[in-house]
Amino acid sequence: MDLIQYKPVGIIHSPFKTPQETPLQSKLSKGAKGEIILQPQYEEGLSDLNKFSHIILFYHFHLSKTYKLIVELSHSNSSHGIFATRSPNRPNPIGFSVVHLDCINGSRLYVTNIDVVDGTPLLDIKPFIPPIERQYGTTLGWLAEGFDGE
Amino acid sequence: MDLIQYKPVGIIHSPFKTPQETPLQSKLSKGAKGEIILQPQYEEGLSDLNKFSHIILFYHFHLSKTYKLIVELSHSNSSHGIFATRSPNRPNPIGFSVVHLDCINGSRLYVTNIDVVDGTPLLDIKPFIPPIERQYGTTLGWLAEGFDGE
Repeated sequence: MDLIQYKPVGIIHSPFKTPQETPLQSKLSKGAKGEIILQPQYEEGLSDLNKFSHIILFYHFHLSKTYKLIVELSHSNSSHGIFATRSPNRPNPIGFSVVHLDCINGSRLYVTNIDVVDGTPLLDIKPFIPPIERQYGTTLGWLAEGFDGE
Repeated sequence: MDLIQYKPVGIIHSPFKTPQETPLQSKLSKGAKGEIILQPQYEEGLSDLNKFSHIILFYHFHLSKTYKLIVELSHSNSSHGIFATRSPNRPNPIGFSVVHLDCINGSRLYVTNIDVVDGTPLLDIKPFIPPIERQYGTTLGWLAEGFDGE
């Protein structure tokens, strides 16, 4: 299949300088603050976004260099297929995070609960819409065991 | 910034042959069935995924050829910044959908509530984890007006 090319639209800054110190998910980030610097030519595309409380960041796991189809997760002492995990080392290392949008100043976005490494290239921003994302009757697969819920 | 290259890992089949007939979100798909054909070399990466009820598909809006920073939405008679919408015509046309996983057979996944055009290139699959995705105290921005909720 044809290669697909994307060009980062900005960069994500966070307090986390290495993957090791980066929280596994935004809920574990303890309110860490992030700053997203959008390239100025895209600023107009932020119009109306400040009315949403949460946004979804799509980004490239730029530190991911290779992947395995079966991954061992250090935090759960178990191994799983890569598509049953959120490991950053994937065939196409695309990441996404739901974060709280604090405010927008020009082409800069200030967010809370950031969970990505400082310097991560931003690919896209979409509004978070709970009535779409919230699904009922879900089961959690291998995560159910020992998962601490909310 | 450097270009980022991804290679599709599979293809998504759906009953929707054109963007015009494709539902705007999975909740509006009326239970449409989809079939995802993963390339066989990635099959091992599906291990354990069948224990999740819902999965997130990441894909390339392959019919998107251009974009505007301010978009007019036909279904709401309003215009908004591209990053405050889910329009497929975006700087980096990455889409994502939460769908119900019915079953997996080898490298084929059968899903319900598909909302993408037939033939869409698949970039990634991740498990849907409601305790992560579900955020409280959200506000819906411009969507709140006239949005019919669940």
